[in-house]
Amino acid sequence: MTREEALALDAADPLAPLRQRFVLPEGVIYLDGNSLGALPRDTPAALADAAGRQWGDRLIRSWNEGWIDAPQRIGAAIAPLIGAAPTEVIVGDSTSANLFKLLVAALRLDPKRRTIVSERGNFPTDLHIAEGAIACVEGATLNAVPRASVVEALGEDTAVLLLTHVHYKTGERFDMAALTAAAREAGALVLWDLSHSTGAVEIDLTGADADLAVGCTYKYVNGGPGAPAFLYVAERWQDRLASPLSGWMGHAEPFAFADAYTPAPGMTRWLAGTPPILAMTALESGLSLWRDLDRAALWAKSATLFDILATAGDALGLDCITPRDPAARGSHISFRHPHAHAITQALIARGVIGDFRDPDVLRLGLTPLYLSHDEVWRAGEILGEVITTNAWTNPRFAQRLVVT
Amino acid sequence: MTREEALALDAADPLAPLRQRFVLPEGVIYLDGNSLGALPRDTPAALADAAGRQWGDRLIRSWNEGWIDAPQRIGAAIAPLIGAAPTEVIVGDSTSANLFKLLVAALRLDPKRRTIVSERGNFPTDLHIAEGAIACVEGATLNAVPRASVVEALGEDTAVLLLTHVHYKTGERFDMAALTAAAREAGALVLWDLSHSTGAVEIDLTGADADLAVGCTYKYVNGGPGAPAFLYVAERWQDRLASPLSGWMGHAEPFAFADAYTPAPGMTRWLAGTPPILAMTALESGLSLWRDLDRAALWAKSATLFDILATAGDALGLDCITPRDPAARGSHISFRHPHAHAITQALIARGVIGDFRDPDVLRLGLTPLYLSHDEVWRAGEILGEVITTNAWTNPRFAQRLVVT
Repeated sequence: MTREEALALDAADPLAPLRQRFVLPEGVIYLDGNSLGALPRDTPAALADAAGRQWGDRLIRSWNEGWIDAPQRIGAAIAPLIGAAPTEVIVGDSTSANLFKLLVAALRLDPKRRTIVSERGNFPTDLHIAEGAIACVEGATLNAVPRASVVEALGEDTAVLLLTHVHYKTGERFDMAALTAAAREAGALVLWDLSHSTGAVEIDLTGADADLAVGCTYKYVNGGPGAPAFLYVAERWQDRLASPLSGWMGHAEPFAFADAYTPAPGMTRWLAGTPPILAMTALESGLSLWRDLDRAALWAKSATLFDILATAGDALGLDCITPRDPAARGSHISFRHPHAHAITQALIARGVIGDFRDPDVLRLGLTPLYLSHDEVWRAGEILGEVITTNAWTNPRFAQRLVVT
Repeated sequence: MTREEALALDAADPLAPLRQRFVLPEGVIYLDGNSLGALPRDTPAALADAAGRQWGDRLIRSWNEGWIDAPQRIGAAIAPLIGAAPTEVIVGDSTSANLFKLLVAALRLDPKRRTIVSERGNFPTDLHIAEGAIACVEGATLNAVPRASVVEALGEDTAVLLLTHVHYKTGERFDMAALTAAAREAGALVLWDLSHSTGAVEIDLTGADADLAVGCTYKYVNGGPGAPAFLYVAERWQDRLASPLSGWMGHAEPFAFADAYTPAPGMTRWLAGTPPILAMTALESGLSLWRDLDRAALWAKSATLFDILATAGDALGLDCITPRDPAARGSHISFRHPHAHAITQALIARGVIGDFRDPDVLRLGLTPLYLSHDEVWRAGEILGEVITTNAWTNPRFAQRLVVT
């Protein structure tokens, strides 16, 4: 592809005006929206209102003026992005905490089924939290197997199949319907971690008849650094599962101040502490961009952006580890290279911000909400320059950062 | 006390200028800082910087420019308020989640000690979470006893004594040193919930030789609605306890992306998910007001504010359930009355914002950081008007709100 062709794609792009709804720094091509989504232009004003008017002026009264329902209201706004009913999603705590709640609950359903099956090399917190969850249920175990073996690992003792829909490193996407059906056939539940797929690909939890899900909102949803995560429980399970993190906000009557815990009906029982209103405000602002959005156009643009960088990588002889089939991946592209860390740093020094994943992966996020075809094309050119001139061999790019 | 005397106290009050560092609405006397602290004047600008510059302009790079260390840095800022070393406190998650982490960890220390002893009528989330924690450790039980019996309930099977330092309803304060010593003598740990005492009274965890603590930061610390909570572990326990919520941010090397969980050294192991940066920004701003503050003057002013309302209540024949001895209480005053809810609503209608606690408690928070003696005196006058004219009998004050 030539630059003229990329510019022509931008000229014809119905999504191009959306870029104006984000704040993006000059001189930067931001290919890390898969790690931290960009700042929506309206979010600072939403935060200023939440702080100045709601907190500063209305003070405690704001709990009765929209705050107390925020977890349910924002959950309902996430629902269309994941193919769920509005009453099947709630927002609060971190992805890690929500994984813990659902895994422990699922392990307690049936004493004969006490094994979590998951993938080796899954996003670390999924496996770490699974370790924490099995320690909380007598006889529970974790069986982490190679990606290709997850279905054959399912058995009569499987409580729950824990999978990340889109792999954080390779970008590979599981077939949600097929894997959910395999879990069902084995008599197990499935728990989908949608952190790398929410806002990146079309998701249909209802169509797949999935049981449980969690996900992060600070990547493609643009909810802000460390934004609250979401939690999904299919309606058929809502009365049968309860949270081990039985905090007062998940109580049926939190303001009756009873000693004994009684879980609230519906999704509210998954709340624990007081909702973080400022963080939720930024998330709600980010989600407002997804209303009335042509998601099919977004996924199509993601595929085109991918092709631009995949073609550039091919020309450079790079080892692309992300599937070429759009239906088999998320919305990022990853290259394996022994000097991936230095290459990432050399790109950042040239204004192309991607990230590095240990030990050898350069990861570039493709966020069609705010990226143009032209800047992705230019990123490919700069990648070419870094590779062909060995720019990454500069010693200053060898230094490892705290967060890579 | 006459109004002139109250105004004279304000004129001589060395803390009076601090009020200018808060945003407070016109026409309101805010006696609910024990539930949601007021907005510090600098916080909106701190939030605007976190959103606009750190997130919007620096994007992912901000993780290496102050974000990743925020839980430890803000924990260190809380340390002086609770008499802890800076390396003994970390910020993150909610009070409920932090209670869960520490209770499960404490229950796992010794298989012969599997009982949590706590107080009936403790703040609900403490008992609710204790229920959740015992379900995660084989053989664990919860023994909630009347307040006067907590010491005699300690025994050879006690793992941890879970107490809230200042009672959310009555304002009664436990003798931290004495109760900690009693737990020690019984061979048990103590876990202090400091939610209603942090920033309200002087706390000396080190002096009391306490083991564990958690606390809320959206009350007297003014961190914002649903601000992240803190967690304290005495240094001697830091290597011996581990979090059941074993998320990636508590890993020794989170960016090595290993499958197996290895807890980080020090307090970092108590982190789980990605830190909520926007919420932490507001908290850090609120904490900045506590630097170089004459805390002794603050506690003395709290006592004077209490006396103003206690005297007003006495004159009205109200049943004050908060101890008269400043060393035996927190920084709020509570009156028991069969029509406390309607009285609370009648006060709010007159611009005096306190709160109601089921079933019959009117609770008024006394926050010397931003309240003047005169406005507390005027609140006493308005309380008198509501009581003596039976203003609370207006049917519109019978309506129960969602959050009371």
